Amino acid sequence: MKGYAMLSIGKTGWIEKDIPACGPLDAIVKPLAVAPCSSDIHTVWAGAIGERHDMILGHEAVGEVVEVGSMVKCFKPGDRVIVPAITPDWSALESQAGYSMHSGGMLAGWKFSNFKDGVFAEYFHVNEADGNLAILPDSIDIATATMLADMVPTGFHGVELADVQFGDKVCVIGIGPVGLMAVAAAAIRGASYIYAVGSRPNCAQVAKEYGASEIINYKNGDIVEQIMTLTSGKGVDRVVIAGGDNDTFIQAIRMLKPGGKIGNVNYLGEGDYVRVPRTEWGCGMGHKSIAGGLMPGGRLRMEKLASLVESGRLDPSKLLTHKFNGFEHMEEALLLMKDKPKDLIKPVVIL
Amino acid sequence: MKGYAMLSIGKTGWIEKDIPACGPLDAIVKPLAVAPCSSDIHTVWAGAIGERHDMILGHEAVGEVVEVGSMVKCFKPGDRVIVPAITPDWSALESQAGYSMHSGGMLAGWKFSNFKDGVFAEYFHVNEADGNLAILPDSIDIATATMLADMVPTGFHGVELADVQFGDKVCVIGIGPVGLMAVAAAAIRGASYIYAVGSRPNCAQVAKEYGASEIINYKNGDIVEQIMTLTSGKGVDRVVIAGGDNDTFIQAIRMLKPGGKIGNVNYLGEGDYVRVPRTEWGCGMGHKSIAGGLMPGGRLRMEKLASLVESGRLDPSKLLTHKFNGFEHMEEALLLMKDKPKDLIKPVVIL
Amino acid sequence: MKGYAMLSIGKTGWIEKDIPACGPLDAIVKPLAVAPCSSDIHTVWAGAIGERHDMILGHEAVGEVVEVGSMVKCFKPGDRVIVPAITPDWSALESQAGYSMHSGGMLAGWKFSNFKDGVFAEYFHVNEADGNLAILPDSIDIATATMLADMVPTGFHGVELADVQFGDKVCVIGIGPVGLMAVAAAAIRGASYIYAVGSRPNCAQVAKEYGASEIINYKNGDIVEQIMTLTSGKGVDRVVIAGGDNDTFIQAIRMLKPGGKIGNVNYLGEGDYVRVPRTEWGCGMGHKSIAGGLMPGGRLRMEKLASLVESGRLDPSKLLTHKFNGFEHMEEALLLMKDKPKDLIKPVVIL
Amino acid sequence: MKGYAMLSIGKTGWIEKDIPACGPLDAIVKPLAVAPCSSDIHTVWAGAIGERHDMILGHEAVGEVVEVGSMVKCFKPGDRVIVPAITPDWSALESQAGYSMHSGGMLAGWKFSNFKDGVFAEYFHVNEADGNLAILPDSIDIATATMLADMVPTGFHGVELADVQFGDKVCVIGIGPVGLMAVAAAAIRGASYIYAVGSRPNCAQVAKEYGASEIINYKNGDIVEQIMTLTSGKGVDRVVIAGGDNDTFIQAIRMLKPGGKIGNVNYLGEGDYVRVPRTEWGCGMGHKSIAGGLMPGGRLRMEKLASLVESGRLDPSKLLTHKFNGFEHMEEALLLMKDKPKDLIKPVVIL
Repeated sequence: MKGYAMLSIGKTGWIEKDIPACGPLDAIVKPLAVAPCSSDIHTVWAGAIGERHDMILGHEAVGEVVEVGSMVKCFKPGDRVIVPAITPDWSALESQAGYSMHSGGMLAGWKFSNFKDGVFAEYFHVNEADGNLAILPDSIDIATATMLADMVPTGFHGVELADVQFGDKVCVIGIGPVGLMAVAAAAIRGASYIYAVGSRPNCAQVAKEYGASEIINYKNGDIVEQIMTLTSGKGVDRVVIAGGDNDTFIQAIRMLKPGGKIGNVNYLGEGDYVRVPRTEWGCGMGHKSIAGGLMPGGRLRMEKLASLVESGRLDPSKLLTHKFNGFEHMEEALLLMKDKPKDLIKPVVIL
Repeated sequence: MKGYAMLSIGKTGWIEKDIPACGPLDAIVKPLAVAPCSSDIHTVWAGAIGERHDMILGHEAVGEVVEVGSMVKCFKPGDRVIVPAITPDWSALESQAGYSMHSGGMLAGWKFSNFKDGVFAEYFHVNEADGNLAILPDSIDIATATMLADMVPTGFHGVELADVQFGDKVCVIGIGPVGLMAVAAAAIRGASYIYAVGSRPNCAQVAKEYGASEIINYKNGDIVEQIMTLTSGKGVDRVVIAGGDNDTFIQAIRMLKPGGKIGNVNYLGEGDYVRVPRTEWGCGMGHKSIAGGLMPGGRLRMEKLASLVESGRLDPSKLLTHKFNGFEHMEEALLLMKDKPKDLIKPVVIL
Repeated sequence: MKGYAMLSIGKTGWIEKDIPACGPLDAIVKPLAVAPCSSDIHTVWAGAIGERHDMILGHEAVGEVVEVGSMVKCFKPGDRVIVPAITPDWSALESQAGYSMHSGGMLAGWKFSNFKDGVFAEYFHVNEADGNLAILPDSIDIATATMLADMVPTGFHGVELADVQFGDKVCVIGIGPVGLMAVAAAAIRGASYIYAVGSRPNCAQVAKEYGASEIINYKNGDIVEQIMTLTSGKGVDRVVIAGGDNDTFIQAIRMLKPGGKIGNVNYLGEGDYVRVPRTEWGCGMGHKSIAGGLMPGGRLRMEKLASLVESGRLDPSKLLTHKFNGFEHMEEALLLMKDKPKDLIKPVVIL
Repeated sequence: MKGYAMLSIGKTGWIEKDIPACGPLDAIVKPLAVAPCSSDIHTVWAGAIGERHDMILGHEAVGEVVEVGSMVKCFKPGDRVIVPAITPDWSALESQAGYSMHSGGMLAGWKFSNFKDGVFAEYFHVNEADGNLAILPDSIDIATATMLADMVPTGFHGVELADVQFGDKVCVIGIGPVGLMAVAAAAIRGASYIYAVGSRPNCAQVAKEYGASEIINYKNGDIVEQIMTLTSGKGVDRVVIAGGDNDTFIQAIRMLKPGGKIGNVNYLGEGDYVRVPRTEWGCGMGHKSIAGGLMPGGRLRMEKLASLVESGRLDPSKLLTHKFNGFEHMEEALLLMKDKPKDLIKPVVIL
């Protein structure tokens, strides 16, 4: 079969591989729509997860089941399914502890285009199908559904990690597709004021549609000062970090109230240390807590987030600025994520 | 001063009393708008809290501060304020434990028209003003703001007690004003499907506007069966009880998934026991947890809920079906709550 | 192979069955020590889970692995293992939601001597071996380790459900083996005063050794009044229910402070309703929350609880009042649980 | 009256001041026993909280009430009381949010020897007496009780922030008096293995008595490597930081499992940044959460922790290596904390 792969750090291209084998608990899926992710870019061009050879890229897909293992009970060939980017080993100790995304080791629930071939292929393999696939509801179109694989759960997890409560003032730093989903999640989690930090006009527009109260543009001055002005010097209750770099945490701590919480879902690809400013962190005593974590994957999570789309509470389709039709556009879509043209939020390739 | 009072069980009328004295931490407030509550009805006509003589009724008000005690720092005469129905003693042990509504004893954070005169008077007394008043934002009209005293915080607390999570299916039982606020709260807490149980057409209409997915009418058959049909036999993740009676819990347990949670904010005025069906409760082992509690009051809570109205996330004005102008209509408004005409959700009296 | 079985309601006896087959994820285990449980008694003589024919009894065992399925990675024949009474399906939706004991349906994580043959046999079957077995540390003897299957995790879960905090006053109702483990758990969870309700002298003695501050004997008067006297009329912060019947909840609610929590781990075998006294429950508003649930099983739980024994924090061996050697004593041990002689806490059979 | 004061940064001495005035909610207390704290040392010799002139030092005391304000209901002259180091304003918004230690601003619940005169004086002032004093039980001697002011609640809060669960492996970094109380707290919170990091022999000895499983001495090599060896390369579930410096967090992150939690109660007195190692933090995605906070003070907390001493669950007297009798030894005791002789854990001065 054909797949679009990382050949080595800095190089991508089409390759031929065997169709993956299906274990007793697994499924083989043919993608119906896929989306490239900025982490594919980090993987290939920044070498973020180290060297990889001829590894098929991609971890965002919806597809059709073509084969299931002998022990799979809930899915059958022909089923149209959402495939989460994170596909845990459900019996692992980490899963039993509530951290299935780290089953088998830190971040090891992330398998596609990390430890095994990804979804930019004619077929791909899904481990523990009963626990890791979800039926795609008829009412959700496949392009929109592709956002359920990673963008929606990652953005929503940021809001969960920040533990947003009714009436909170929340700052969401970064309004790429994940940050936009964090804005949407904060709005349907009960935030009152949502301050969205970003500078790209189309993202700012969509952020407002998803519920942002104000757009904070770093070009207009220090974002912490802007937040402090907007909050009469009190700061915010919660910060979701969905963009920026290691030093974004310095800003987050500075704008946060004592008792506040930071939820990070930004993959930090380089640098040695995240730095926490001692004084503004209350000399270690300010109850400004810091959490960061990979999205929870698996079937239940997909079903619950899909139900938000199905019931009309969430419309991820606003992320989809660039749609392609046909396998052959995969490279073009991926390079869009690399080049980030001004009008891009997220591309999708319909197959 | 003049006040509309419970004279004794079953009897109400206008009385004359001295303007209340203002302690060092307290404030005297002149109401700008008040609303009668069904608990005023229970208090007078069901004797729900026992005999009371010449106790001024009412615990839902916004007002203007006319006097503050010598130790009050944050408020001054002339301030327009939201007054929560629950005004805790903030240094009490129960408050320190996180249960300020029970400061000084179970339910004892509820003082207005319970332990002391209420707000249906020319002036009323507020204990610990700095901790129990909140400035009324200019952008919120006083009739709407009156809903922040009790209806909004009670409905929202039901959703907090039920611990609604992203993508949950939630049943809200009862769609009077508190239930409607629970529907609104579930929607901005991340529920996907909200099943609202009620039969009054105007309440059903408003429930849909607040986010209900379906209206479950007991006239169409057993509500548990209806819920089971809508959820393919699986039941719901959460139940908020905002109406019904002691036996409503039987239905709630029956429609709940294992691991589900019930949040009750319905004041249970009569009967000896709430009953929990043993088998459907998993013989005590089903992880169907039951919580019920009085709304949290105080200043912070009022500020946070007001911020939801100010920012446009919540519009409680849809509750206000009957508006009166002038003190003299207080009796009329109260009797409306007693008689519950078909088109009533909530009356308000603007002074 | 030989097994000791429930023949039908009210009847037990030895039967012959085939050695169970081992699926790809499973293990076949030969018991080294087993213990009968009062739920075996309920199952047989009260018909608590309905009719069963020729079902081998028992769900508390340590054993030696004799066979593993082709996909099992962490265990091999010859391994000495702790086998939890609850063996979830780890990829089930309920497990993903954090309620693995209800995987596949309410209480359905309980398989031994419920849906399939139990451990009172020459061999027994364990589903999902990698997720449901734990290596028995060399330092723990097999008789003591048998208590890790059910008595320890159930008692400890009561304390988790009641959410005991530093300095809490806790009442543990029932001081059979589960209640005694709840006493021990409350002590190492940070309770200050532990009031243990029971009347059997040897249980009372062991309760004190596990950390009970006072023994409350119903023969000395109403237990609620005794608790109220001991707490200067304030009541307790937490109640763990590990014995009694449906009406024990009435006492629990009455002795609980507002803001208090009840954790039930007593299997309620009969009666239609658990009753919650309306007034003492604060008319539904007292924040006295009620939780009840089956113990979490699985490998991680077994490893963590075993580490408490291994490190000397917990010594479950005090439960073991009656030890038998040899398969042939299984009936005798079981009947002890039925007859409950005065000096019995828990019997164990070493094989 | 006489008081032992910080005259300016780097200088201490006896001064004369007026006896403090007692507001309506307050109390004036005569100390019965006081203890110097290493934060007194930081305050004076490192200038940790900035310049102060003639500020009486000390925030750890038990005493006798000599005067109460007109609105104080629960205490009267002659009462022997525990005085927490942190005395919140209970009606403040931060207190209502559950963070009373930050009432009025980050860390502003800490008043003694920070914003106002401390306890090393003939008399001292306590704000909101009803909310901030606790009756000293007769059974606790005053020297031991002095440890309830700061050492016990701070150490215990570290364990709360780290959210220790049954069977956790916990590393406590630092075994000064706060770290020792964290060890004791971890033991009665349900940890199985407690690895205590420190090098002073007498502290190590007491750590073992409080429940440490192993003492990790940095002189024997990298502490992270030692922890990894002890945990078979898996790391610990929880880390409590009660000593070290900003870079201790680097070690804590490295030794922590994914899903693990850090609770910091070490006051970080210098340096610009706490650094979090990016890779070991899972590139921001490892669910290794970081919390740090000032101890909760106030009456309830004192009562609950005192109940642990009274009931025999906790014996803080092992901390008291140096006892002095008489006011005139205050300087000597303070300088002990500065010079830290080898055999010192904590001095106390009985008055």
